[in-house]
Amino acid sequence: MGKIKVGILGATGMVGQRFVQLLADHPWFEITALAASERSVGITYGEACHWVVSDVRCPEPACPEPFVPLRAGRSRRVEGIPALVKEIVVEECRPDLTCRLVFSALPAEVAGPIEEEFAAAGYAVSSNARNHRLDPDVPLLVPEVNPNHLALIGIQRRRRGWKGFIVTNPNCSTAQLVLALKPIWDRFGITALSVVTMQALSGAGYPGVPSLDILDNVIPYIAGEEGKLEREPLKLLGQLEGAAVREAEVIISAQCHRVATREGHLEAVSVKLAREPGREELVEALQGFRGPLQDLGLPSAPEHPIVVRGEIDRPQPRLDRDEGGGMSVVVGRVRECPVLDYKFVLLGHNTIRGAAGAAILNAELLKAQGYLEEPG
Amino acid sequence: MGKIKVGILGATGMVGQRFVQLLADHPWFEITALAASERSVGITYGEACHWVVSDVRCPEPACPEPFVPLRAGRSRRVEGIPALVKEIVVEECRPDLTCRLVFSALPAEVAGPIEEEFAAAGYAVSSNARNHRLDPDVPLLVPEVNPNHLALIGIQRRRRGWKGFIVTNPNCSTAQLVLALKPIWDRFGITALSVVTMQALSGAGYPGVPSLDILDNVIPYIAGEEGKLEREPLKLLGQLEGAAVREAEVIISAQCHRVATREGHLEAVSVKLAREPGREELVEALQGFRGPLQDLGLPSAPEHPIVVRGEIDRPQPRLDRDEGGGMSVVVGRVRECPVLDYKFVLLGHNTIRGAAGAAILNAELLKAQGYLEEPG
Amino acid sequence: MGKIKVGILGATGMVGQRFVQLLADHPWFEITALAASERSVGITYGEACHWVVSDVRCPEPACPEPFVPLRAGRSRRVEGIPALVKEIVVEECRPDLTCRLVFSALPAEVAGPIEEEFAAAGYAVSSNARNHRLDPDVPLLVPEVNPNHLALIGIQRRRRGWKGFIVTNPNCSTAQLVLALKPIWDRFGITALSVVTMQALSGAGYPGVPSLDILDNVIPYIAGEEGKLEREPLKLLGQLEGAAVREAEVIISAQCHRVATREGHLEAVSVKLAREPGREELVEALQGFRGPLQDLGLPSAPEHPIVVRGEIDRPQPRLDRDEGGGMSVVVGRVRECPVLDYKFVLLGHNTIRGAAGAAILNAELLKAQGYLEEPG
Amino acid sequence: MGKIKVGILGATGMVGQRFVQLLADHPWFEITALAASERSVGITYGEACHWVVSDVRCPEPACPEPFVPLRAGRSRRVEGIPALVKEIVVEECRPDLTCRLVFSALPAEVAGPIEEEFAAAGYAVSSNARNHRLDPDVPLLVPEVNPNHLALIGIQRRRRGWKGFIVTNPNCSTAQLVLALKPIWDRFGITALSVVTMQALSGAGYPGVPSLDILDNVIPYIAGEEGKLEREPLKLLGQLEGAAVREAEVIISAQCHRVATREGHLEAVSVKLAREPGREELVEALQGFRGPLQDLGLPSAPEHPIVVRGEIDRPQPRLDRDEGGGMSVVVGRVRECPVLDYKFVLLGHNTIRGAAGAAILNAELLKAQGYLEEPG
Repeated sequence: MGKIKVGILGATGMVGQRFVQLLADHPWFEITALAASERSVGITYGEACHWVVSDVRCPEPACPEPFVPLRAGRSRRVEGIPALVKEIVVEECRPDLTCRLVFSALPAEVAGPIEEEFAAAGYAVSSNARNHRLDPDVPLLVPEVNPNHLALIGIQRRRRGWKGFIVTNPNCSTAQLVLALKPIWDRFGITALSVVTMQALSGAGYPGVPSLDILDNVIPYIAGEEGKLEREPLKLLGQLEGAAVREAEVIISAQCHRVATREGHLEAVSVKLAREPGREELVEALQGFRGPLQDLGLPSAPEHPIVVRGEIDRPQPRLDRDEGGGMSVVVGRVRECPVLDYKFVLLGHNTIRGAAGAAILNAELLKAQGYLEEPG
Repeated sequence: MGKIKVGILGATGMVGQRFVQLLADHPWFEITALAASERSVGITYGEACHWVVSDVRCPEPACPEPFVPLRAGRSRRVEGIPALVKEIVVEECRPDLTCRLVFSALPAEVAGPIEEEFAAAGYAVSSNARNHRLDPDVPLLVPEVNPNHLALIGIQRRRRGWKGFIVTNPNCSTAQLVLALKPIWDRFGITALSVVTMQALSGAGYPGVPSLDILDNVIPYIAGEEGKLEREPLKLLGQLEGAAVREAEVIISAQCHRVATREGHLEAVSVKLAREPGREELVEALQGFRGPLQDLGLPSAPEHPIVVRGEIDRPQPRLDRDEGGGMSVVVGRVRECPVLDYKFVLLGHNTIRGAAGAAILNAELLKAQGYLEEPG
Repeated sequence: MGKIKVGILGATGMVGQRFVQLLADHPWFEITALAASERSVGITYGEACHWVVSDVRCPEPACPEPFVPLRAGRSRRVEGIPALVKEIVVEECRPDLTCRLVFSALPAEVAGPIEEEFAAAGYAVSSNARNHRLDPDVPLLVPEVNPNHLALIGIQRRRRGWKGFIVTNPNCSTAQLVLALKPIWDRFGITALSVVTMQALSGAGYPGVPSLDILDNVIPYIAGEEGKLEREPLKLLGQLEGAAVREAEVIISAQCHRVATREGHLEAVSVKLAREPGREELVEALQGFRGPLQDLGLPSAPEHPIVVRGEIDRPQPRLDRDEGGGMSVVVGRVRECPVLDYKFVLLGHNTIRGAAGAAILNAELLKAQGYLEEPG
Repeated sequence: MGKIKVGILGATGMVGQRFVQLLADHPWFEITALAASERSVGITYGEACHWVVSDVRCPEPACPEPFVPLRAGRSRRVEGIPALVKEIVVEECRPDLTCRLVFSALPAEVAGPIEEEFAAAGYAVSSNARNHRLDPDVPLLVPEVNPNHLALIGIQRRRRGWKGFIVTNPNCSTAQLVLALKPIWDRFGITALSVVTMQALSGAGYPGVPSLDILDNVIPYIAGEEGKLEREPLKLLGQLEGAAVREAEVIISAQCHRVATREGHLEAVSVKLAREPGREELVEALQGFRGPLQDLGLPSAPEHPIVVRGEIDRPQPRLDRDEGGGMSVVVGRVRECPVLDYKFVLLGHNTIRGAAGAAILNAELLKAQGYLEEPG
């Protein structure tokens, strides 16, 4: 039986490129359609794309391109673009792509209605955009955290009369935070949480943060980020009750900062627990966490969703962001907090676990649960 | 009447150099003695010193050195060293220096007993070292915060039988935090406080942090820092009662990080207040703060000890660290905190307000209060 | 007698801001008009401008802005904008500005015809744009190098029938190179020259280089730069013969790189000389250079246009770029070159000596030579 | 038949760690001995080593360490250390190690006599230290460039009466330069060469360059580097004549700079050729180069020793340093030079092709040529 055909909306941007990269040799999915804005439509992906995600560990080293004469103007970078997709002609973001599922890396300015059109037309949509995350009938999903929220899909289809559907993954800093919170939430309950982030440059996309703004500097503000961090975890940790999710009752305060790192959001977290464990018990809960996915064999699910380090100065972005292929969250410095109950530091790869990898893992769960059978 | 003669202990290190720089044209003090470790004793300060603090705004541009032939080996940097001190011969850290007061920039490994010897011998000691900060009879001082703690000096002298005395300034990240807390503490009371720091490279001294450790990275640990931040503010905000300071009852939790900035510690703070003001009232308290020093005319006291910025993405280290000549603390993003009561971001210049400038301001207060009259 | 009224074209960009900053308290000039693109016209400069050049040493510390409530969206930075110009309403780039001279910080895409309109209308134009630099009747000017080229102005006016005129300053990396070459050229002659540059981020303007492109990286290409460096020095060092400049006969090879520094272009230079001096003689020529401007009292002319350092590891961008208020070039490591004759490293402040400061010094020379008398 | 037993001298330093990393699953060699300075002797490699080279692409992701309680003090980093060597007890650098060949990553201060002792005692020594590089009877070797220089080994043994022998690899910036020069040298001859380097931080070892020295800066000096670059290529490109190498007659001028990159030395090169080809012919010579090793099947020899890129802004350190597993040199911007004949930019991985990888490739050539048979 063949692989499932997938398309990527917004394929030429930074997150779109991560999708291409992570799907290049995926065992379940094959890229059959790439869509982007008007500027790129009608030319090949290799021509349309300025490749900026080459830092990730590829399975094989890039082949040297055949030499081409010096051109005037700025070069596009093309090496690293998987050969399989380089010749695909970029299409418009309209629901006539040849595929079963689309991954959406669209910017929030346009994602909303386009994703709805695709879902109405029968496509499964796995979206990284924020637009539908808080819609009551749209799953906001981290497979290790709330896989049962997929039940919202049936409600969504009925209510909206769609043949397809939309699922979403959370904001990057939320994704890694909620994953680390999950075993704590399950075993001890969380009543309040304070988080201060130090976020990587790639989170702002490309070209993103001007170098003159960040060299020898920290910027204590990221537009919209604190609101997402204070709200999205409530839905993710919420209880599915009938046709809706009852949000978790956790008070969250977030303060977000941009720092001069390429990849890997670092978060200093402090939690107040409903039932206070000893420190060893807390560490054991984090370390022992495997999540509900073991038996599903999802290709992108890391063996250890949470890795706990014991060294006093870890995790660090450059050293730990690639843990579990960028899909693990690394936790360190677990210790008592005089103000709340416990504090710790956590790190995740923001464009893998926090974006493209998250949406792919969601799609893998959809497949494993039978949501990607061909629509009647 | 002449200036007061001062010496610097540990004069060749990074903080020692800041002392030299800030004292170079001080209206009240003149440098008459420089002391350092054995390696530098007997040669001139110009020969002993590898000058690394030249980023600070000097009153006049550096004069070009006369050209010297290329030398093998690594160059010492000498420009920026004030001409007045370049020819001073470095002495040992023994209490026979020709001066009335010594500033101590000694490392904690050796500062303790050396500072005691100087105090015993009749010198006033204004120390940046941590060793005596928590001694019950030693003032831990920020002039705008707790000037009345100077009364401990009399107790210290009697108890120890010293002709001189020691006063100390707090750790860098504490100094700027407590200054911003002062008007809040006075008007609303603080019961709990959470602080997450993003600290500059200069805080680790020179050579300090290896470039390979911090390029594209954040280090979530600074040895000893969290303990200082959780403890020193209690004494600084404490009440002088009889012969001792009763520590303030504030619960503090600190998480400290090293980031790739040269100067300026950024702190994300959240506070729980005894009496909760409206936001405008809180901002007004911060903004209107002048401290108790206005009438004393201390040369290093900034006109605005606290500067409140209204822009949504300030303060930033590179843009705001030099506010008030590096002696002001800049506060921004004052807003409600869902977990505690209010949160905000603050920034201070860690080697000026957090180190050398702090000790100099302390010395200025000593002078204004009559503590530097010649000892009988 | 009052100051000369000046305007700035392209006033809100990075170089435009440097003009504002350097002219804020200029003894001869006062800013009376600011012009920019459509987007900014009709609002005040304080409203139109996102200030990014605050790293320069201002004569007085920025006054804290009155506190304004948090706004959504990205903040404009306004502190640092001199109070005198903040309320000036930005005008269109049309020749009806109230001033005698305009400084042009316009981008090359639009500078050409706009500057011509101003010159035709009687304005003196001191331009930093590349468009007219190589016009045979337009002076390409560095006052210490070729002040006599101002004689082209008369030819320019006659030929074009203009009441005003245009003078230009060279490209940033050319400006500092040619200044250092001048005494060598005069005393020993130069037949060939190889230069490899390591250029600062500010040279690309704002937002300019994306941080993701330059963190942990060097980019070995700057569009158009090598061509300028290989051509402009020939005109600058050329001989005025009758109505034209005969270009110098020097063979130049340039290789340009972008590195992660804020300000200060570093250049590794190697020269072949017509007459080969001893090393001491060469150093003496560089060090002793004063240029032809001493008696003119130009306010922006540094006392030492060339500063020679003897340490083995200088000049360095962060340590040396502010020499002479950013108007001096710093030369170091002068030594024999086995391939050509001598090699050395030089550094200049690219947005001061290489852009705004250059155009201002040109205007000062115009004034001193009587070119700014009111047009009949 | 088993693998050849190898030891590493100076195993705990930065280059020593690269040796460990690159040899961890080598098909021909197995690490059986690790030696270092006194401080580390008698404890396991895992205990002795602060691992700093984890940025290299490992074949498998690091296993999470078992959690250990928070320790006071700075953590050693241990993950990334291959399991096979972690428990090896570090020995002294004396010639009683259990192995046939030793790789020397010793610092130049001690390498000279220690390497001689090992060679005298019968060990093959493949050294990265500079001490013996220019000894007339010691091969200075890049396998793709001068494999026939191995014939010096016989002369060396006879002259010195050693059972073993020493071979050396060049300085990092020389290694990559000479590899790129080889096909040009062979086909067109080179009479003069100018090279300006922009070298990575790792070239200075660990802790190496202080972050305060390099943030927002370039340092135009690296001790000893220019001398090596101007001399070592002459021996590498020299002709073996009887018992000695006649050095190549090329005039070289080098200027070396330290920039803020982790790995990858960039070099701007200009060459004067004996016979001047057209540009396409030159590119073809570079691109078509395979070297003399194809039939030997050396495991570390890259398929393309030289990769030529056609984009106008390549090579770049972050994007190109891992080409060929760090063993290829990447050349770009090949174009005519007005002063000499051609200029181009080249990039190599300084701690792989420029250090540990170089010495390992040398050892592989020794093995392939029969030099590692057990000594009689």
